[in-house]
Amino acid sequence: MASVSPTPVLKDELDIVIPTIRNLDFLEMWRPFFQPYHLIIVQDGDPSKTIKVPDGFDYELYNRNDINRILGPKASCISFKDSACRCFGYMVSKKKYIFTIDDDCFVAKDPSGKEINALEQHIKNLLSPSTPFFFNTLYDPYQEGADFVRGYPFSLREGVPTAVSHGLWLNIPDYDAPTQLVKPLERNTRYVDAIMTVPKGTLFPMCGMNLAFNRELIGPAMYFGLMGDGQPIGRYDDMWAGWCTKVICDHLGLGVKTGLPYIWHSKASNPFVNLKKEYKGIYWQEELIPFFQSVALPKDCATVQKCYLELSKQVKAKLGKVDDYFNKLADAMVTWIEAWDELNPSNASAEVANGPKK
Amino acid sequence: MASVSPTPVLKDELDIVIPTIRNLDFLEMWRPFFQPYHLIIVQDGDPSKTIKVPDGFDYELYNRNDINRILGPKASCISFKDSACRCFGYMVSKKKYIFTIDDDCFVAKDPSGKEINALEQHIKNLLSPSTPFFFNTLYDPYQEGADFVRGYPFSLREGVPTAVSHGLWLNIPDYDAPTQLVKPLERNTRYVDAIMTVPKGTLFPMCGMNLAFNRELIGPAMYFGLMGDGQPIGRYDDMWAGWCTKVICDHLGLGVKTGLPYIWHSKASNPFVNLKKEYKGIYWQEELIPFFQSVALPKDCATVQKCYLELSKQVKAKLGKVDDYFNKLADAMVTWIEAWDELNPSNASAEVANGPKK
Repeated sequence: MASVSPTPVLKDELDIVIPTIRNLDFLEMWRPFFQPYHLIIVQDGDPSKTIKVPDGFDYELYNRNDINRILGPKASCISFKDSACRCFGYMVSKKKYIFTIDDDCFVAKDPSGKEINALEQHIKNLLSPSTPFFFNTLYDPYQEGADFVRGYPFSLREGVPTAVSHGLWLNIPDYDAPTQLVKPLERNTRYVDAIMTVPKGTLFPMCGMNLAFNRELIGPAMYFGLMGDGQPIGRYDDMWAGWCTKVICDHLGLGVKTGLPYIWHSKASNPFVNLKKEYKGIYWQEELIPFFQSVALPKDCATVQKCYLELSKQVKAKLGKVDDYFNKLADAMVTWIEAWDELNPSNASAEVANGPKK
Repeated sequence: MASVSPTPVLKDELDIVIPTIRNLDFLEMWRPFFQPYHLIIVQDGDPSKTIKVPDGFDYELYNRNDINRILGPKASCISFKDSACRCFGYMVSKKKYIFTIDDDCFVAKDPSGKEINALEQHIKNLLSPSTPFFFNTLYDPYQEGADFVRGYPFSLREGVPTAVSHGLWLNIPDYDAPTQLVKPLERNTRYVDAIMTVPKGTLFPMCGMNLAFNRELIGPAMYFGLMGDGQPIGRYDDMWAGWCTKVICDHLGLGVKTGLPYIWHSKASNPFVNLKKEYKGIYWQEELIPFFQSVALPKDCATVQKCYLELSKQVKAKLGKVDDYFNKLADAMVTWIEAWDELNPSNASAEVANGPKK
């Protein structure tokens, strides 16, 4: 039996966001861990279809009609026929923390055979600080049985608030279409018992499959872009969000952790379909990475919203020439912030507590 | 029984450097792994004492008299009564690779109970590329069963040559004196099955206990400084080398890996003695880290030697005011390069193959 803590942590402060096109039978396996929490289900595709949610779960469900009704013309910033639609759930949530998971992800087991409570580990990651300014060779110094090693400056041992917790995947690794095609049988069997901070100034590929974040600290940067229906690319929604988020976290002095927890990713998506969705992204990312590596945000950008709007300007100025798509995306980034502030009026202009750090 | 590969890799291209003040009984446990290789033993302390080396090992041994004889007045750059003296072994080696290990480090076991061939893992690390420009969430993409994840730019997948492989320690973690005092009973039991590249622009605390490097690529930067006898600090030898090395690797487009292999660190050193050695370093490192974080090397520094001499100038200019010790250290850095070039005339002015990358 899975061990579940008697009082679930952050029960009233965390929403689980699930984008889906099918019945949510996968929740049965997660029942011991997720049932105490509130779910926000974002139904993609045909809104007339009924999505069945197993009994006993507390949830709200939004389909395309709901999104259009709630956001009006601003609904254009929410993707359709792509799991990027999940970011609508981040926007309508009223909680401090978000955990988002794909519906083909199941409970993984640690090497001792124990079922992994992924959500509990994400919460631990989010509630302990990050260390972006210096690398600790024994990994997360705040984990039990670990600490800062010799040579780690004492002034940096307090760390910074953690904004993002990026979890990993056993079984089917998160490969792009070319790698899927070349290594169709590769499975991830390596359980790495580590959590670490992605250092300041370093970009990483953020996957949306098993991801948690502090909505108050970084929510408005978690826009999953324009993907899928009517757009020239797909499968770059989480990557885009990750690059934007990391640059803003670095600017605001916030931390991004990656590593534990693992989920069990059950099924590889079709590599041929993926290749069609990805091929422009594979080409464009060669320009995107140098762009994000060189982004500088001005000191007066002290809120996530201000940072994000500044970023949208730079996207238009510097990536618009790569493809007109980035002009559209830059506009959608602005729309996203407008919609976010409309639905979240209380923190629309709030400064991040610890302010910008450069 | 430990499994040993039938033909030891790089047998004629690697030296094992061991600094010691006692008989090398610890080699018995390493016999299956080390016996095929050549050892360079650097005897610290009283040169009249005889160090016993177990039968069957191929070694050369240098005591203080030998160092003085070989280097003449330049011997002043080699520390005495401190394990920093090990870097003399790097200088007299004629091999491409160095593995250095402390004499209180034993063979560790992986979670399956198998003895870990630390040297073999270091060689694997050094012979596969590093990825300093972008973070791979599934750790070393060149390991078996791993690859680059979705969103990793294809142009960066070739990686860069690996200059340093930094291994870790089970049992006694490498803590500073304050942490040792606060957590006397803490033991490292977490076996993290990962190797990763320390990203470009990120400094790390390099420990000399279990370390390998490519001497041709980075050797002249592996100076362990002025420590111990007659010096105001100790236990910062490897840290100093690590900071200098990392800054130069970043400049030259070389990689630093950390993680596997583990060794078993048997005995904690005395925290009171350590505190005495460290306390100035603990204070100074608060100035050293910002210094190294902001070091910029000019483009024309295309060899490790040139980089290192430039670094010594900046140390004098910017750290000399922290303490006069850093003026002495900057001079010793120059002496070290002069001595290195004297003993290694062939590569004294060689350019690094891949040149500087900024």
